[in-house]
Amino acid sequence: MKNKIYASIITIGDELLIGQVIDTNSAFIAAQLNKIGVWMRHRVAVGDQWDDIWEALDDSARVSDIILITGGLGPTADDITKPLLNSYFGGKMVVDEQTLQHVKNIFQSTNRPLLESNYKQAEVPDVCKVIPNKNGTAPGMLFEKNGKIFVSMPGVPHEMQAIMQEYVIPLIREKYELPVIFHKTLTTLGIGESFLSERLKDFEAALPGNIKLAYLPNVRSVRLRLTATGEDAAETQCLLDTQFENLRHTIEDVVVTLDDKTLDQTIAELLKQRKKTLSTAESCTGGALAAMFTENAGASQFFSGSVVCYSNDIKKQVLHISPEDIATYGVVSKEVATQMAANVRELMQTDYTIATTGILGPDGIEGKRVGTVWIAVANNKKVMAEEFSFQYNRQRNKEAAIKFGLNMLRKLILED
Amino acid sequence: MKNKIYASIITIGDELLIGQVIDTNSAFIAAQLNKIGVWMRHRVAVGDQWDDIWEALDDSARVSDIILITGGLGPTADDITKPLLNSYFGGKMVVDEQTLQHVKNIFQSTNRPLLESNYKQAEVPDVCKVIPNKNGTAPGMLFEKNGKIFVSMPGVPHEMQAIMQEYVIPLIREKYELPVIFHKTLTTLGIGESFLSERLKDFEAALPGNIKLAYLPNVRSVRLRLTATGEDAAETQCLLDTQFENLRHTIEDVVVTLDDKTLDQTIAELLKQRKKTLSTAESCTGGALAAMFTENAGASQFFSGSVVCYSNDIKKQVLHISPEDIATYGVVSKEVATQMAANVRELMQTDYTIATTGILGPDGIEGKRVGTVWIAVANNKKVMAEEFSFQYNRQRNKEAAIKFGLNMLRKLILED
Repeated sequence: MKNKIYASIITIGDELLIGQVIDTNSAFIAAQLNKIGVWMRHRVAVGDQWDDIWEALDDSARVSDIILITGGLGPTADDITKPLLNSYFGGKMVVDEQTLQHVKNIFQSTNRPLLESNYKQAEVPDVCKVIPNKNGTAPGMLFEKNGKIFVSMPGVPHEMQAIMQEYVIPLIREKYELPVIFHKTLTTLGIGESFLSERLKDFEAALPGNIKLAYLPNVRSVRLRLTATGEDAAETQCLLDTQFENLRHTIEDVVVTLDDKTLDQTIAELLKQRKKTLSTAESCTGGALAAMFTENAGASQFFSGSVVCYSNDIKKQVLHISPEDIATYGVVSKEVATQMAANVRELMQTDYTIATTGILGPDGIEGKRVGTVWIAVANNKKVMAEEFSFQYNRQRNKEAAIKFGLNMLRKLILED
Repeated sequence: MKNKIYASIITIGDELLIGQVIDTNSAFIAAQLNKIGVWMRHRVAVGDQWDDIWEALDDSARVSDIILITGGLGPTADDITKPLLNSYFGGKMVVDEQTLQHVKNIFQSTNRPLLESNYKQAEVPDVCKVIPNKNGTAPGMLFEKNGKIFVSMPGVPHEMQAIMQEYVIPLIREKYELPVIFHKTLTTLGIGESFLSERLKDFEAALPGNIKLAYLPNVRSVRLRLTATGEDAAETQCLLDTQFENLRHTIEDVVVTLDDKTLDQTIAELLKQRKKTLSTAESCTGGALAAMFTENAGASQFFSGSVVCYSNDIKKQVLHISPEDIATYGVVSKEVATQMAANVRELMQTDYTIATTGILGPDGIEGKRVGTVWIAVANNKKVMAEEFSFQYNRQRNKEAAIKFGLNMLRKLILED
């Protein structure tokens, strides 16, 4: 039987401890390790304090085989990680010629002079193996001690990510015999965690011991994750697939996406497959739908554009919404949402459109309560509108509007 | 002299350790504690594993006075935090009548039946003080042991945030005599960390011992943070203000925002103060500028709308960009950017506009290299366009385009 291989992550930097930045590196590293079957044991964040970093190294080495460290490698005076690692592993600082050349090249190619602090970036403990950082000046460093490996990486996300993918993951795969771990996820919309768990009681009770179900609730949606562990890859995958189909079948009516895909990604795939186009008309979502669809490469294959009509004048002048209807029914109404969808489709000549108008808060308008949202979707045959009444703050009302609106659009596309 | 009060955060949940969610709770808690002068010692994330949670409690209690715990309190079977805390603090589980009533009310108000798992949410260890959770069903819990306080909170961000702000922060303020800690920040654009540090060498060397300078680099910008600690609030604040003015003065030419404000927030403030309006015409930014401006309440005071013209047809049909100019100069050109800005300003009748057209990648078009971006800003007197050549991936090219574009707009507004 293969041994479980454990990893810890140490993130270093005062900015993490005073809450000035959100730690996205840990999630990236954890996801990468998880995919190859390394078990994350724990994750620690410490400030730029010698004793605390030292203790985090000791604590992590006690419970884990692999210790991954990010942050604290910049050229400025607040970074103490490199001298600390040097001292922790009993080395002395030397200039790494290859790194120095790399740093020089970076500065030459951008016509900037090399500063003293940049020279320092090429200094490394002589007891480490240098890991090249093609995207930046601070190199990664690999140490070994008592059979455990320690990798120090820069905190800049894309620099760390390249080092993880191109160096650390292959190294771990080569060094350890790893057990098998697979996940499959799906996302539900419009049903609470406890109702879902009630419906899944029997399913969960019948799960084999090596498969685990987890609930990840978010605004009006719940992501369900099935995790299978085992020895044999094909067998474990097959068992997971079977149980996943059971799960999906049990709650088919509330499942909106599979495999960690978001609703907008699912819609993008459908539209690209079918060679159809999309436009949006956004009042309360304020461009968030357009920004979401254009986030990923290839968006130009299906996304034409959007009219963000935040003010009523723009609704009238650009989208030709009837001023009488706005006066009669209010700007947050079925009539306005329907016209927005139909008119933006006409203006942008797309196969599908989605339109939003609502009151996200904090203040109400037109005597309507905060959280009232009308959403319309349209294709070449019809326009469908629906009213929602969310009960959250501004940000969560927007999130909910986006999710339910995208789900209306998804269903309309699947009807065709 | 006041003692330093130390805190640790423990976040619980397998989803953190497999990288499926990004931990935003820790940053929120850390920022709240920091503001009142509590020193964050470290922060640990562990999975839903009995021994690991137990060890995290022991480790945190060893170094900190206050231990804040989030996550693991949901109604479903994967949550073991509550029974563990019960056992850790040697209590027995009892039903809390007030919580039960609260849970019943929530379900009644939304016309949903109460499930068995919901009853369980009202069960708490008899050795804790229950902290009401007005936004959800899982209550917070306060424990005390050996003079240290432990607070367990739900992992749902807005539920945890309300408990922190309304209960935990006031409790800590009342219980401890806290030292003084203040921060001031500013953000620079277009200068690298090492060049900045070179320019600030003398400033940094002359800083008094209780003031610390930190660098937080991001895509093309660096946030600088001055932190002052002391005994007397007024004195510490005054010392910090003086040094901050020195800092600002030393690098005045590259400072773009102050006080942790983002560029879009700074622009929003300027426009609201001056009662001016804004529209955007977005090709490569795809609605991200509009979404950014409409994120915050009060956006309708200055933001009118946007035309997201992702496809060339929309550029021609909706924004009336000359097809000849697109054919002659290409869609990523000074001519197109300038016309986009001028025409959207005309269409939306706003005081200012910003227009973007560029190639973010991964693929180039028109024989131009990835990262080429033209941005134009306009007011009633002129249109100004500038070309940028970024060298990152798609996402970072967009971030850079947004920052430099917003800075062009900020400067144009300040000229008036």
